[in-house]
Amino acid sequence: MIRSGISAIRRLSSAPGNSSFFFRQLFDHESSTYTYLLGDLVSKECILIDPVLEQVERDKQAVHQTGLNLKFAINTHVHADHITGTGLLKKSTNCKSIISKYSGAKADIYVEDGDNIEFGQFALTVRPTPGHTNGCVTYVLESQKCAFTGDALLIRGCGRTDFQEGDAATLYDSVHAQIFSLPDDFTLYPAHDYKGWTATSVREEKLYNPRLSKSKEQFVEIMKNLNLAYPKKIDVAVPANRVCGIQD
Amino acid sequence: MIRSGISAIRRLSSAPGNSSFFFRQLFDHESSTYTYLLGDLVSKECILIDPVLEQVERDKQAVHQTGLNLKFAINTHVHADHITGTGLLKKSTNCKSIISKYSGAKADIYVEDGDNIEFGQFALTVRPTPGHTNGCVTYVLESQKCAFTGDALLIRGCGRTDFQEGDAATLYDSVHAQIFSLPDDFTLYPAHDYKGWTATSVREEKLYNPRLSKSKEQFVEIMKNLNLAYPKKIDVAVPANRVCGIQD
Repeated sequence: MIRSGISAIRRLSSAPGNSSFFFRQLFDHESSTYTYLLGDLVSKECILIDPVLEQVERDKQAVHQTGLNLKFAINTHVHADHITGTGLLKKSTNCKSIISKYSGAKADIYVEDGDNIEFGQFALTVRPTPGHTNGCVTYVLESQKCAFTGDALLIRGCGRTDFQEGDAATLYDSVHAQIFSLPDDFTLYPAHDYKGWTATSVREEKLYNPRLSKSKEQFVEIMKNLNLAYPKKIDVAVPANRVCGIQD
Repeated sequence: MIRSGISAIRRLSSAPGNSSFFFRQLFDHESSTYTYLLGDLVSKECILIDPVLEQVERDKQAVHQTGLNLKFAINTHVHADHITGTGLLKKSTNCKSIISKYSGAKADIYVEDGDNIEFGQFALTVRPTPGHTNGCVTYVLESQKCAFTGDALLIRGCGRTDFQEGDAATLYDSVHAQIFSLPDDFTLYPAHDYKGWTATSVREEKLYNPRLSKSKEQFVEIMKNLNLAYPKKIDVAVPANRVCGIQD
């Protein structure tokens, strides 16, 4: 297992609003997935969080045209609604793939609680947020006062808990312990949105999330009664994502 | 004409990355329109750029749940592809509407070259960018190193020049004189995107815009040969937008 660029020691990177920080949010209309490109304009190192297979060419264009070099392709979890672009990105760039140790998926690097993923002078810190799946993690970029919550926390919503290793009580504990414990003004970026929202904040979700602002008992009851349809792509997406999106 | 909060004198607001600055990008899937909520967390004043009629409730929720008060509802131009939410926002909040003096549309406040639209300690500066329509303007937020380009400049594209007062040569001159003259690292936020991009930069568009990085003659030729379909909503949207989205 390669651990270059991964550090288990918490390290605060640069100051908020550092002008060498590059951020670009990207959207896949088919699966309503947000992909994030984060970079350091000095070292030119960048990372992609939750790339989508069908958008790999667009994402590579974004990396190239902003003058950056892709160091890591990172997933927040094993997705059930789209195939990750990570495998294809690995084939056509020098990037390494990263996912949680508890995801059950293949990757070059496995991360766990407290690990730092470094790109240039910046670093994402891993916080485990299981409940939607066992391997769900939230990546916190403390220097920029933001976090990437995957499907654990969506804007005024949350990921499903009725498939894969879903467990509503676990998800509730994860969000309250690992995300709502961040400062109120941290911006939160989810893996999906269906209503045209692009971001939220810790404060907003603590106050206005219709599920997670409730008690744990109420939350479990809400999640039990969602009666959602079987996910269209799950039988294709989950096995593919366990091998990084493509067969070797 | 009310001009409170509008200043003809160029005034630099606060430093880049000022933490009292609030920014939220919102998307309308039907018309692929981006609406922008910008606010000052100290004074609580905020503005909306290019609100969409069908999203007024969502936008009001965004304003309310972030603890802000809507001062201005602003359009970059008279849209042909959706009806503005400005009229409905005026009916249900205390906001004033703003549009270019050369738009031909009704509004509480008309702006022109060099005017500043103030919200709290921040200010948008008006730059005329005609060519898609006569009244198209770009709003520059110098303190945050960004600009809102409406349909004058889209990400790797631009607005059409084959209807309303469209003129390709005028659009080319506008973009080059008023947008490409901003610093390379300014982030540009368009009124629309159809491919999942959310933002771009002056540098990227100068280098990679497939139309506007060309010569003026080539640009005019490209725009002449686009052979685009007649806009679906233009016959409803343009008359409605001339009266701020709704009849009195």
